[in-house]
Amino acid sequence: MGNNINNNGHPFSMYFDLINGKSENKVSSKRLLSQMKGMFFNQKAYESALEKEDKMVYEFYELDLPSTDGNLLFGTSIVYPGKIGDEYHMTKGHFHTILDTAEVYYCLSGEGYLMMENPEGDWKAEKFTPGQAVYAPGRYAHRSINTGTEPLVTFFVFRSDAGHDYGTIETKGFRHLVVEQDGKEKIIENPNWKES
Amino acid sequence: MGNNINNNGHPFSMYFDLINGKSENKVSSKRLLSQMKGMFFNQKAYESALEKEDKMVYEFYELDLPSTDGNLLFGTSIVYPGKIGDEYHMTKGHFHTILDTAEVYYCLSGEGYLMMENPEGDWKAEKFTPGQAVYAPGRYAHRSINTGTEPLVTFFVFRSDAGHDYGTIETKGFRHLVVEQDGKEKIIENPNWKES
Repeated sequence: MGNNINNNGHPFSMYFDLINGKSENKVSSKRLLSQMKGMFFNQKAYESALEKEDKMVYEFYELDLPSTDGNLLFGTSIVYPGKIGDEYHMTKGHFHTILDTAEVYYCLSGEGYLMMENPEGDWKAEKFTPGQAVYAPGRYAHRSINTGTEPLVTFFVFRSDAGHDYGTIETKGFRHLVVEQDGKEKIIENPNWKES
Repeated sequence: MGNNINNNGHPFSMYFDLINGKSENKVSSKRLLSQMKGMFFNQKAYESALEKEDKMVYEFYELDLPSTDGNLLFGTSIVYPGKIGDEYHMTKGHFHTILDTAEVYYCLSGEGYLMMENPEGDWKAEKFTPGQAVYAPGRYAHRSINTGTEPLVTFFVFRSDAGHDYGTIETKGFRHLVVEQDGKEKIIENPNWKES
């Protein structure tokens, strides 16, 4: 695969465009609408959007470094603009498997939010605008949401052994959604959120 | 101090200009020429440059998060263009105190190198140009060097408990220098390098 960096612990470098986030000669991981079943609030809108087109919702670059607490993984995430019903395009979102490990996002272009919440229910939606670095501390699940009209591009870094727990969010959802109401973005409680 | 982020483990965000790296309302740490005694190869050129002006060689933003293996520190580093003798402006450079922890640098503007070497003598100078992400693996000392005419601006991330060992480089130096020879940048062996 294009991103297989078998660097054997040696220095290396990779290019990511500072505006569109693309890495030449690298293969990104793509998330199509069909891969996001059950993630959006409005199921009917999801089904009818999918009938029209299995569009790409987001893509990101993955590295393949040894899973240790000393290595860091990094890359760019690109969330394309759009909505499913009133809900803005977003990533699936995840906890880290090693729960208490942080992640840093640096916004290169576009706008939106990093939605974060911890298991106890503390939550915060930090605004993404170009130049804004957002800190997702350990214990906080995080999801990128594009509320703009251009791709939302972020550069991210996290510990290589952190791991991704997508299952908890797939089952329970996030406690809050970002939707468009009367032409404006609004953060609302998720009516579908499950306590456990 | 302006960078005292007592976030108590909660999400937060910080702004860094995507071109010049500046963070409004934050106080940067500044490294003046007078603080870099013994770092440049040409001592005579250093002394006479210092007599003329105690110029700022570089500055960077520090965060103050709890020192744990789950937290990440991030910010920008700005190395100003210039030379001392034939040697380009650079940062002091350091190992991490927890040696086997990596650091990621993402170049926002300017050009130069990240010079890296490990205790066994393996070394590499990775080129910084806008959009280039450079990986300093665990065990590699690293120093940013500005070979261009504009400030070299990078966004960096490392583990909050990694710590900085500046002493080893202050005593031994790096094995290689980046200098200008006949109007071109060149990587040469450091005649002053000490084995131990």
